[in-house]
Amino acid sequence: MSITFYDIPSTNPGRSWSANLFKTRYTLNLKGIPYKTEWVEFPDIEPLCKKLGIPPTGKNAVGGDHYSLPAIHDPSTGVSLSDSLLIAEYLERTYPDTPQVFPHNTIALQVAFVDAFRSNISAIWDFLTPAACAKFNPRSEEYFRRTRKEWLGKDMEDMAPKGDAAVAEWARFKNGLDKVDAWYSAKTGAVNGGPFLLGKTPSWGDIVVASYFVMMRIVWGEDSEQWKDISSWNGGRWAGIVGALKSFEIVI
Amino acid sequence: MSITFYDIPSTNPGRSWSANLFKTRYTLNLKGIPYKTEWVEFPDIEPLCKKLGIPPTGKNAVGGDHYSLPAIHDPSTGVSLSDSLLIAEYLERTYPDTPQVFPHNTIALQVAFVDAFRSNISAIWDFLTPAACAKFNPRSEEYFRRTRKEWLGKDMEDMAPKGDAAVAEWARFKNGLDKVDAWYSAKTGAVNGGPFLLGKTPSWGDIVVASYFVMMRIVWGEDSEQWKDISSWNGGRWAGIVGALKSFEIVI
Repeated sequence: MSITFYDIPSTNPGRSWSANLFKTRYTLNLKGIPYKTEWVEFPDIEPLCKKLGIPPTGKNAVGGDHYSLPAIHDPSTGVSLSDSLLIAEYLERTYPDTPQVFPHNTIALQVAFVDAFRSNISAIWDFLTPAACAKFNPRSEEYFRRTRKEWLGKDMEDMAPKGDAAVAEWARFKNGLDKVDAWYSAKTGAVNGGPFLLGKTPSWGDIVVASYFVMMRIVWGEDSEQWKDISSWNGGRWAGIVGALKSFEIVI
Repeated sequence: MSITFYDIPSTNPGRSWSANLFKTRYTLNLKGIPYKTEWVEFPDIEPLCKKLGIPPTGKNAVGGDHYSLPAIHDPSTGVSLSDSLLIAEYLERTYPDTPQVFPHNTIALQVAFVDAFRSNISAIWDFLTPAACAKFNPRSEEYFRRTRKEWLGKDMEDMAPKGDAAVAEWARFKNGLDKVDAWYSAKTGAVNGGPFLLGKTPSWGDIVVASYFVMMRIVWGEDSEQWKDISSWNGGRWAGIVGALKSFEIVI
């Protein structure tokens, strides 16, 4: 019996679309651990987690329990858990003979990198969230619109910046990426080439970076102005990292 | 002929006091590379760098060239350079058989960690800068007060927050450290124990962390309220990292 991976579907051909979900999908595929995907619409996440005995991952904006995916159930150990980092640690510990996502005990450095990376790309969400929502199946779309309105006081249509504000926010996103590019560039002098943080070997930080960019590519489409813009930045670094992990996007 | 390491003296017993300078001192000591310290007062930094052919490290707050230490001169290669990160990379490349500060090609992760760490401790400078200045020799103190007044529009006496603002800023400093502590704590589940980011082996991120805390210990003194406070935070993590690198503080 293989692991069950709970993902949120969309109307896109590959169905998978979410950055947080891709963190776990990439991890499972990169480790080569057998799993099967079970698709869960937004309103079904909380009942599923409660059924599996998985606690909330945090609080929502109005102080209520917030349940979120990714989650997995591993029948070989009986473990069910959510949160992409906790899942990666669990898989690393439980399947030590698979390729490591925290090689050389780099987990502390990796989580610091991820926190700093996410701070630097905060400008993307007001653009990306409504674009993603437009691809949800009807039950999820209705639930997502209603809960975000309740938590953020905003309709999806009012989230994306417009006019000059859109130009300024897109520039802020690019500016944040320039800082991340400088970190990746620090290894120029190092002996080990390759597109990843540690050189030729992908690790957790790259998985997280690729997860956000693959979401942008999927949500906006490869031919969109947004993806063309992003693909041209920093010498093509971001599209390059997504491309280098292409085979690990696969939906099983 | 050994490397010359240019450091800025203070009236403290060990003379060395600066976080940026300690980054290079720790690196040299940890690598066991022979060197001797040459002491340089603030007004002599720019003439020294010009004499050695070292370019400015940046611009000051009013747009002029800014020369800063650390710098080294390596007579075996004829190289002179400044900037603690560039020096560490140079030493790593030039002396590959010494203990590595960027082991396993982790330099990209290390510089990301350092950027994020420094952002999180930004609240400390208004407290620490005037306390450091009070320990400078007279020529450096006069120069430092005059240039910072020119660049920041402030006297040293007006820099440290007072009253409620001091309480709030000290809490903001502690809050930033709590985030860094969470990164260090991520390795709790890892097999390799030890106080450092990678476990038992110190690397660049730990050197940088220790450099800022050793400056606090030296500038305020081990018996100060500030150091006692800091030593008690996060289960003693910060004093612990400084303690674990104690033997590499040595001034040669």
